[in-house]
Amino acid sequence: MSEHPIKHLAVIGVGLIGGSVARALKHAGFVGRVTGVGRSRENLDRARELGIIDHWTHDIAEAVHDADMVLIAVPMGAYDKVFAELATSLPEHALITDAGSTKQHAMDVARRYLSDLSRFVPAHPIAGTEQSGAEASFAELFEDRLCILTPLGDKDMGGVVDKKAIDAVEAMWMATGSRVIQMDAASHDDFLASVSHLPHLAAFALVNAVRKQGDEAHDPFQFAAGGFRDFTRIASSSPEMWRDIALSNSAALVDKISALQTELADMKTALSSGDGERLLETFSAAKKARDAWLEEHGGSL
Amino acid sequence: MSEHPIKHLAVIGVGLIGGSVARALKHAGFVGRVTGVGRSRENLDRARELGIIDHWTHDIAEAVHDADMVLIAVPMGAYDKVFAELATSLPEHALITDAGSTKQHAMDVARRYLSDLSRFVPAHPIAGTEQSGAEASFAELFEDRLCILTPLGDKDMGGVVDKKAIDAVEAMWMATGSRVIQMDAASHDDFLASVSHLPHLAAFALVNAVRKQGDEAHDPFQFAAGGFRDFTRIASSSPEMWRDIALSNSAALVDKISALQTELADMKTALSSGDGERLLETFSAAKKARDAWLEEHGGSL
Repeated sequence: MSEHPIKHLAVIGVGLIGGSVARALKHAGFVGRVTGVGRSRENLDRARELGIIDHWTHDIAEAVHDADMVLIAVPMGAYDKVFAELATSLPEHALITDAGSTKQHAMDVARRYLSDLSRFVPAHPIAGTEQSGAEASFAELFEDRLCILTPLGDKDMGGVVDKKAIDAVEAMWMATGSRVIQMDAASHDDFLASVSHLPHLAAFALVNAVRKQGDEAHDPFQFAAGGFRDFTRIASSSPEMWRDIALSNSAALVDKISALQTELADMKTALSSGDGERLLETFSAAKKARDAWLEEHGGSL
Repeated sequence: MSEHPIKHLAVIGVGLIGGSVARALKHAGFVGRVTGVGRSRENLDRARELGIIDHWTHDIAEAVHDADMVLIAVPMGAYDKVFAELATSLPEHALITDAGSTKQHAMDVARRYLSDLSRFVPAHPIAGTEQSGAEASFAELFEDRLCILTPLGDKDMGGVVDKKAIDAVEAMWMATGSRVIQMDAASHDDFLASVSHLPHLAAFALVNAVRKQGDEAHDPFQFAAGGFRDFTRIASSSPEMWRDIALSNSAALVDKISALQTELADMKTALSSGDGERLLETFSAAKKARDAWLEEHGGSL
């Protein structure tokens, strides 16, 4: 008898991430059937046409009533609404995981609504493109990428460690091709503020700074080239999604922006005093760190 | 009789840019022979092996004594040395152009050393990769890219407009495949500070900010993904080259850094007060500007 580890997966939010998880798990034979939940009928119809999901509904309670696993893959700003519905509709045996970019916020919301916190094993698959929607999803999105679990095991948070729940969620993410690791949510949020949230905000900020320099007669953008294109690629990301991420990790992000401001202020000082030695030292340290990172991790990106 | 528009081109600095110009002009049949000048025997030997140059020498005077065109393609920090040598060795009929990233500085140096300023037609081909050296050069580097000429025609700078000189240099850059335009040097430096120099310094600054967040036990870089890779690609650029560029355009660059700091400070305020509406507005404006730029100019990058 070949049974799927997950009989019925409910995917709340069938976008790039939710769609790619469903595709990967189907491809791996890890899931029996998939029900998609969302708002856009067009997107859900398309997801069914593409074989990403088997059914869809607008109603969370309907989708989860006989699910054994629920994946939350909606913007962070919609977590309250989703958990409020799950609080009254989640079957006792079912587990929840998510794909949100910040983990303390996800856990705060879960804590507010769920009576049994051990049902929720938060996850963050570090993968994505600047595209969105089911159409953009693909089964290989998570191949060799990190997926960080921050299980509600912290005793001081009143969480209950349920090893079976953690193992089941870990197995699901591993089946997508992810390299799964665990850490505490605060460390996760701090690290991601540095290497993901800060670059996104800095890219938005830089584009705005350049935009305000120009007028119709003198448009600096016309002189931008490949460096600008790559530096600002992430400034084409979804503003709504990044508003939610930024708000849900605002304390760490304010710290990281301050650290960047300090670096920029130091550069200004060096520039104003013509201190070439200091500039060379600063630029060299950055190049060295970036090259070392690319050498070690670039191959898997 | 098929004569080459340039009989003898002297390329001072046979790196990515100098090498690519030589390759492109040879490919176009625009140049008879090319003499390379540089410090590294190994690089010059390699350039000759690859057919980029026909001869080489370490000595500028020797290279230019019967040249009709001289291309300066060395880091901005070496301009003083190069122009000092050209001041005593340039044949009367020869023209000079350059490929430096900042133009007011190039013109200041030229003004200090040349008795006849109309011989120098400054240029900035907006093209490059993060690679360097003759080996990395290729004939197509300038294809469809902007090349900005800032001829010394400003009367208030004491320059002399020599239309024949400008035409000859323009024809050379057009033969590389560049789209050639003209503007005043101050506007050039201001535009490029926004769309090129600022992103480079911001990328260096961000990598350093992240680097200083971590320690051996907690290395944030391990969680960096594709967004970080693209945002920081230009932080792998040559620190020496960027020191020179930054110093040679420091006033404009200090202004642009201030503009970026203002944007970052505004974001911090919005984050601290949980002002999602303000964040959404800011992010959306940046995305809109970036998408519009990519739509209009991305195809030629």
